[in-house]
Amino acid sequence: MNKIYIIGVGLIGGSMALDIKSINKQAKIFGIDTNASHLDEAIKLNIIDEKATYDDLEAADLVVLSIPVDKAVSELPKVLDRISDTTLVIDVGSTKYPVCKAIEQHEKRRNFLATHPIAGTEFSGPKAAIHSLFQKKTNIICEVEKTTFKLQEKALQLFSDLGMRIRYMNPEAHDKHIAYVSHLSHISSFMLGKTVIEKEKNERDIFDMAGSGFESTVRLAKSSPVMWTPIFKQNKDNVIETLDEYITNLKQFKAFMETDNFDEIFNEMQNTNHIKDILNGIQ
Amino acid sequence: MNKIYIIGVGLIGGSMALDIKSINKQAKIFGIDTNASHLDEAIKLNIIDEKATYDDLEAADLVVLSIPVDKAVSELPKVLDRISDTTLVIDVGSTKYPVCKAIEQHEKRRNFLATHPIAGTEFSGPKAAIHSLFQKKTNIICEVEKTTFKLQEKALQLFSDLGMRIRYMNPEAHDKHIAYVSHLSHISSFMLGKTVIEKEKNERDIFDMAGSGFESTVRLAKSSPVMWTPIFKQNKDNVIETLDEYITNLKQFKAFMETDNFDEIFNEMQNTNHIKDILNGIQ
Repeated sequence: MNKIYIIGVGLIGGSMALDIKSINKQAKIFGIDTNASHLDEAIKLNIIDEKATYDDLEAADLVVLSIPVDKAVSELPKVLDRISDTTLVIDVGSTKYPVCKAIEQHEKRRNFLATHPIAGTEFSGPKAAIHSLFQKKTNIICEVEKTTFKLQEKALQLFSDLGMRIRYMNPEAHDKHIAYVSHLSHISSFMLGKTVIEKEKNERDIFDMAGSGFESTVRLAKSSPVMWTPIFKQNKDNVIETLDEYITNLKQFKAFMETDNFDEIFNEMQNTNHIKDILNGIQ
Repeated sequence: MNKIYIIGVGLIGGSMALDIKSINKQAKIFGIDTNASHLDEAIKLNIIDEKATYDDLEAADLVVLSIPVDKAVSELPKVLDRISDTTLVIDVGSTKYPVCKAIEQHEKRRNFLATHPIAGTEFSGPKAAIHSLFQKKTNIICEVEKTTFKLQEKALQLFSDLGMRIRYMNPEAHDKHIAYVSHLSHISSFMLGKTVIEKEKNERDIFDMAGSGFESTVRLAKSSPVMWTPIFKQNKDNVIETLDEYITNLKQFKAFMETDNFDEIFNEMQNTNHIKDILNGIQ
């Protein structure tokens, strides 16, 4: 695949472009973005070779759709309308059911592969793009059977070249489970940041007391609202379920404290401590 | 200060011992610990030079009390009973009001300085001790005026040698504010870990989908319940207040989602985004 079109040259699309260029010296990377300054920046940073438009997509070997999930749902059909029979289109969004649903009846459905690379940082835009972002990361692929076999093969080769391991899931299961290990973490982090910022308004210098533990738990509160609002909207029911369970657990912890049941407080923490072993598996 | 006694040779006490040895080649480090295997380990790791007991404390130039905060409250008076007039005793616990209260009438009150180095990792025990842990970290000192001037000077020289910057607070303000930037982060992390582990029991392979964002937000859930239970107990009222505010913010976020008020979801995140600038000040 030599003609690569990146729609949305931000953290994920940009990082993928950088790696593809390293892997395949013949590859030519075209960038499409509604944000003109991002395109200029991406050229300066040597992430893309040229700007392009949807009208150029017929020439594409690969199209990477890396834009907020609400835009992905509306743009993907237009992209599929314009590609050739041999073009592979992948998306990289954090929700999978809505995007799969949006094109289930499209005549080019078999040119599309729904993916979710579990990779990223709290930063966004072309400047956030980095080399080797996908190395040793998991890529979740949904509805693989709906993509034509030849294009599946090309996609798997690409992900292998990027250093990723593959997991297959259906879109519903993906959206349900990712709510726990990704979407809820973002909300817990945002609300922790909010709680402390609100306090700081009245009582100065709180942040002067903050250490690396606080920094770690609120890191995700730096994430982009433009990216995350549509994720929460599209995955509303699952996210509300995780929030319910999280709030219930916090209330129970508080109730144990209020009744001086510190044996249970100890148990709560000890029972969760084995997250150590679980996290050892994550890189 | 050449004769240094570390009571509790874990992450904080052990790391301090390592740095003191680097700074002062004349220093001899003695370890006191109820856990005999920790003492043996600390000798093997070259953190302490010799084991000691409370009966040896009269010879001490410096005593570092680095044990769980409930133990600190009961042990500190016994330590002060045994030291000489020129011994400096510091504690390093995450709560300051109870320990200051416990010895306010002690005849050796002026030999004691209450401190809280905002430094650490989620690990514990002598193996967790590392060099330069305190470099560029904040050390909060409480009731500095109650320590004799000569011993204040010695303590400040030590903290300066360790690379720390100093902030002065009263114990009540310390305990109130640290609840926000440290204690609440630990609870949010533990409960996030619990919520996901509970889900995993019924639906396997969730953790296979977790990335670095999840890892970051649950890092503190690896922390020691032996250390943290007494912190929550001693700082009960302040911690409950922070939990109340955190739960209220989470419920409001959930309510916005339930009523499809995604403009407010966007605002909540955008308003918290400036945590970026705040965190830039933390190292």
